[in-house]
Amino acid sequence: MLDFTFYNPTKILFGKGQIAGIAQEIPQDQRILITYGGGSIKRNGVYDQVMAALAGRTVFEFAGIEPNPTYETLMEAVRIARERNIDFLLAVGGGSVIDGTKFIAAAVPFPGEPWDILARHAPIQKALPLGSVLTLPATGSEMNSGSVVTRRATQDKLAFMHPLVQPRFSVLDPSTTFTLPPRQIGNGVVDAYTHIMEQYLTYPVNSPIQDRFAEGLLLTLIEEGPKALATPEDYDVRANIMWCATLALNGLIGAGVPGDWATHMIGHEITVLHGLDHAQTLAIVLPSVLAVKRDKKRAKLLQYAARVWGLTDGGEEERIDAAIAKTRDFFERMGVRTYLRDYGIGSDAVPTLVAQLERHKLTRLGEHGDIDLATSRTILERCVAA
Amino acid sequence: MLDFTFYNPTKILFGKGQIAGIAQEIPQDQRILITYGGGSIKRNGVYDQVMAALAGRTVFEFAGIEPNPTYETLMEAVRIARERNIDFLLAVGGGSVIDGTKFIAAAVPFPGEPWDILARHAPIQKALPLGSVLTLPATGSEMNSGSVVTRRATQDKLAFMHPLVQPRFSVLDPSTTFTLPPRQIGNGVVDAYTHIMEQYLTYPVNSPIQDRFAEGLLLTLIEEGPKALATPEDYDVRANIMWCATLALNGLIGAGVPGDWATHMIGHEITVLHGLDHAQTLAIVLPSVLAVKRDKKRAKLLQYAARVWGLTDGGEEERIDAAIAKTRDFFERMGVRTYLRDYGIGSDAVPTLVAQLERHKLTRLGEHGDIDLATSRTILERCVAA
Repeated sequence: MLDFTFYNPTKILFGKGQIAGIAQEIPQDQRILITYGGGSIKRNGVYDQVMAALAGRTVFEFAGIEPNPTYETLMEAVRIARERNIDFLLAVGGGSVIDGTKFIAAAVPFPGEPWDILARHAPIQKALPLGSVLTLPATGSEMNSGSVVTRRATQDKLAFMHPLVQPRFSVLDPSTTFTLPPRQIGNGVVDAYTHIMEQYLTYPVNSPIQDRFAEGLLLTLIEEGPKALATPEDYDVRANIMWCATLALNGLIGAGVPGDWATHMIGHEITVLHGLDHAQTLAIVLPSVLAVKRDKKRAKLLQYAARVWGLTDGGEEERIDAAIAKTRDFFERMGVRTYLRDYGIGSDAVPTLVAQLERHKLTRLGEHGDIDLATSRTILERCVAA
Repeated sequence: MLDFTFYNPTKILFGKGQIAGIAQEIPQDQRILITYGGGSIKRNGVYDQVMAALAGRTVFEFAGIEPNPTYETLMEAVRIARERNIDFLLAVGGGSVIDGTKFIAAAVPFPGEPWDILARHAPIQKALPLGSVLTLPATGSEMNSGSVVTRRATQDKLAFMHPLVQPRFSVLDPSTTFTLPPRQIGNGVVDAYTHIMEQYLTYPVNSPIQDRFAEGLLLTLIEEGPKALATPEDYDVRANIMWCATLALNGLIGAGVPGDWATHMIGHEITVLHGLDHAQTLAIVLPSVLAVKRDKKRAKLLQYAARVWGLTDGGEEERIDAAIAKTRDFFERMGVRTYLRDYGIGSDAVPTLVAQLERHKLTRLGEHGDIDLATSRTILERCVAA
């Protein structure tokens, strides 16, 4: 096991009706800004539950945080938060709303140009406190300190992490996810699955606990994911997926093991340049990363094949190929297509994507830092079509 | 899955040499009281590492916290902490030292008789902050808010839990465990194993994540436990056991599932009346609880048999018997005897133990609250001998 620091102070309120609990979590005298997305929370009753819980409080609203939240939109919220002397941010939505709200939290008291937080890793000295009401299980943002923000003007999708922007609390009520469209459920499961793979599918460091936790989460997603599509109002299924997605990226399974994250870095560029959903890019890139890095990932690929997919017969290459095929097939069954061609993108897009990686200095990706631009090109070429 | 609240703000510093990190975790100006046990930390270098990390700080010491820490000893530490205006407690040792230090933390600012915290669940308004340097993986106290304290004078072993006494940080350096005697390693593994079983071996609530995490921890202890006895200085083995013991009782695997805890409650009375090590009592009582409650625990016992012990052939009773026998055998292989007779205690002890349970109002134990005194008597009678 590698050395690690693990610190995760987000309080999780899990279960039906838990939104009422936010009243106890936000100090009485705080001026609250509720942030959300396109307004689905007004149709599914979540907005009303939040407002009921905060009755009598000083509450402002900021709507319109989009998927892959943009600097341009978020800076508008920063302006309002400053103008209204907001004390506490409450993100109500999925990972994009929470990620965006983390950026707002850091940007409001930031003395300089907030984009530097992302572009120059400018140090954060303080941030507004925030909490979240999660309505889309996927990114894990509800229980970690990371945030990814896109700047439309410059086609940059960049990340920052800071303990000060970790949610103080997050409400996970699985019944709030009943009304999600299938595309968002499929995306969420693929996103969580890939988060697990980024931390599991590297090389062995004698970490049986982390391995078994990761495998347990993968198996649960494989079992429960298709059920979530088939029977949208099955509470237990939604509960298991929701808790899975949180545990997939709250630091636990990544503590003491190497991380890959090449799939995410390459995927970000596809989203920025071609507008694909985040999870769509992961479903496209992950199988290719596994195939191209099969030698250095061999031991873990064989373990994954055996423990997650029950593949124990045949030669090593055969088992690895089968495990990658099963992974791709699972993503497809979740309704997420796994080739660039499925989204109308051809091999002519590859050079621009590689150039974008170069521009972002993403030239040493993966758990060994050995995915250079040539390797990324090979990976992307495999992403185009079968 | 059941509803739950999960909140665990302890920061874990894991790895060799991490004791140096406590300097950053304790504010510079604090008056620190270091609490420890019998002095093994002076022989294995841990004391020196702690003192080096705190060089230049105002540090006091309280030694002599015994296994199953007593109110009598701890109140002496409370007196010293008050006298010296201590701001921060640093527990250096195993679960007993940490449990005892939690009581000290709550007792120092407590306005009344601190025993009421245990005996009458008197409300705790404040507590001294504390951190820990763990040297014995076993109880999980390093990452939870629970504490068990014994009062010698009245033969009471009672527990309390409060978020204010949860360690701010805990250092887990596996190399500090190299010099532990085999008895403490065996006890630690049995203690952690039983903590997992108390939260896993109940009845199904459709919680595949919690189940697989629990099974992953059990499998890891079964694999790594005997290695820890055979090759005491294998860092990875000690690291895996240490992290297992912490995760066994930090709230994670218990979130959203029922808990049993009958084994612990019955075991406490055996320790108080007969002086057995805590883990010895668990090794004795757990197999009998599983055997006596086999009908209500049937589904989970069969899952445990299959997933943890690979027992899939034969009838249900046969598989359950085999799983219980394997559990007992594992404890014995860890050097912990599993019958009262092995410790010179006969069936004549049973009525007094039952009377003690009655005196402590422990008349509705287990995940269904259906282990009454008659059932506890049956369990204890099975504990005497094969």
